[in-house]
Amino acid sequence: MPSAARSSLSLRYESARLAVLDQQALPDAERWLDGSDADAMIGHLHALRVRGAPLIGVAAALCLACLARDGADAPALHAAADRLRAARPTAVNLRWAIDRMRPALSGTPARVEAEALAIFDEDVALCDAMAAHGAALIADGEELLTHCNTGGLATAGVGTALGVVRRAWESGKKLHVWVDETRPLLQGGRLTAWELARLGIPHTLITDSMAAVVMRAGRVQRVLVGADRVAANGDFANKIGTYGVAVLAAHHAVPFHVVAPWSTVDLACADGAAIPIEQRDPAEVRGVTGRADGVGAVRWAPVATPVFNPAFDVTPGTLVTSLVLDTGVLSGAELASGALARTARA
Amino acid sequence: MPSAARSSLSLRYESARLAVLDQQALPDAERWLDGSDADAMIGHLHALRVRGAPLIGVAAALCLACLARDGADAPALHAAADRLRAARPTAVNLRWAIDRMRPALSGTPARVEAEALAIFDEDVALCDAMAAHGAALIADGEELLTHCNTGGLATAGVGTALGVVRRAWESGKKLHVWVDETRPLLQGGRLTAWELARLGIPHTLITDSMAAVVMRAGRVQRVLVGADRVAANGDFANKIGTYGVAVLAAHHAVPFHVVAPWSTVDLACADGAAIPIEQRDPAEVRGVTGRADGVGAVRWAPVATPVFNPAFDVTPGTLVTSLVLDTGVLSGAELASGALARTARA
Repeated sequence: MPSAARSSLSLRYESARLAVLDQQALPDAERWLDGSDADAMIGHLHALRVRGAPLIGVAAALCLACLARDGADAPALHAAADRLRAARPTAVNLRWAIDRMRPALSGTPARVEAEALAIFDEDVALCDAMAAHGAALIADGEELLTHCNTGGLATAGVGTALGVVRRAWESGKKLHVWVDETRPLLQGGRLTAWELARLGIPHTLITDSMAAVVMRAGRVQRVLVGADRVAANGDFANKIGTYGVAVLAAHHAVPFHVVAPWSTVDLACADGAAIPIEQRDPAEVRGVTGRADGVGAVRWAPVATPVFNPAFDVTPGTLVTSLVLDTGVLSGAELASGALARTARA
Repeated sequence: MPSAARSSLSLRYESARLAVLDQQALPDAERWLDGSDADAMIGHLHALRVRGAPLIGVAAALCLACLARDGADAPALHAAADRLRAARPTAVNLRWAIDRMRPALSGTPARVEAEALAIFDEDVALCDAMAAHGAALIADGEELLTHCNTGGLATAGVGTALGVVRRAWESGKKLHVWVDETRPLLQGGRLTAWELARLGIPHTLITDSMAAVVMRAGRVQRVLVGADRVAANGDFANKIGTYGVAVLAAHHAVPFHVVAPWSTVDLACADGAAIPIEQRDPAEVRGVTGRADGVGAVRWAPVATPVFNPAFDVTPGTLVTSLVLDTGVLSGAELASGALARTARA
């Protein structure tokens, strides 16, 4: 049976081989790497060559499809699934995708592949649904601010927060986007700036420390961010720096929107305190970690400087104006009143 | 007549020659450059090899002393003073130091030198006075947060905000300092981390985007920053990112202190809107600008990404808990009631 094919901005699946766009080499080089093997994929996940909460779930599922089509048996597939599932601890999407793959892993290779492709296709559809709901919130002429990267590189589809921006732009609204560079790993400066330039959407790159002054100048009408995990009460984990942006938005009375699919909601977490936060290598803060053929590695701090480097922070739901899901939009008041748990039960 | 000598952490004046520590080569290399010539000094000021609001005034004054001792006549000295005065527009200390040198420039070389040395000595004394007033505010066991570099590298003495920290530490108080890396030019990561390590003061380096989470975790009892210019109503300009830290501190009920000498107060500015803000090279935000023999240059954003790069921001005096001057401490309420103008008239 010929294998089906799928492609997105950063994934290409064809003939039981998965190629992934090396997001550490962007924006200067568009280099594709093999992701058909579990060890390779885990390496890509650790090194953030494959990153973005929705994308890592889709990529891990497609990796399992490759393994199945290459002849791995059920025990081997389950063992690979265990290792992939543990590669990143904060984003719930990875766990969700692997757990959804489990029943198929005991079936035929075709069944494993079909499940992975379904996850891919659903991610595309989820992005479209979020984009439609979110774009309706944005008025013509608005200036927006975003943090990290939440576009076509972070998902199999148009993205979460950046997908909303794209849909609003493509519907004819004039927009301008302030892009937080997003230290330490610079997903805003490297990836969001690259995506917005590709899409032709006007944007300006700033350091994270400049978000406050552009808000004070009245140049931000709305903040849009993604999420790595949303707790039952609306607290959510996202890229480090998100919480500070939420506080600044509240101070300046700027609406603050979180855009995420239902697969990012973890009702088993009552609130943000239950979300595990991954600590990363101090070298990321002492300088820029990179590669000679991508972003070069530079250290500027003293070599032994003590460092705190959480990959994520938790923003309380009380600072959220609305949560844009694929199923619709929940206001902060609805989140506070337990709407997420009620919606899930409905 | 033998020339007098002075030295500080980053300036060495002896025999009518001025050596300046290249702050762009820190922390890995301690390289001294000549600053005895106006063109060289203006280059150092532009490139931030010599930086720090108080220091640049002292350095420019000592440069004029070198020129005078080298035989420059009064018209040449005034012309050099004009050019030095214009090298950085925001910090009022540079203007203040040059304007104070003016009468001496028409006198003997010895008089020019004596005035420059007096400015140096007074800066040392001002730092000591601020450190004594500020250290009294800090309790044993506190965790502090600072932005940019305000220590012995930024002044001729112990520093402004960091001088307060040093004095409190040396008086036996146990402290821990959170150091904002201070993008885009990384004065925190490069210089403050280096100074604190030299002094043996416990510290942890963070990206600017992490200040919010350490405050939320209850790990910051006090924020201390310097200032490049203080307006009559207590609004002040300081390194970009300071305003955001002030908003975060207010949100978390963390006291926020500004430490600056009277020479930083500009009563001709009624409020912050009158303070000019210098825009710098977009390349600083697209990556890290540096030198092969210091911090290497790396670009990570797309080469043509539009950038906003103000060197400073303005924080309203309403967010200031107190202003620590060499003459004493003014509360936010005193600032709001016009205490700066009253104190100056007294």
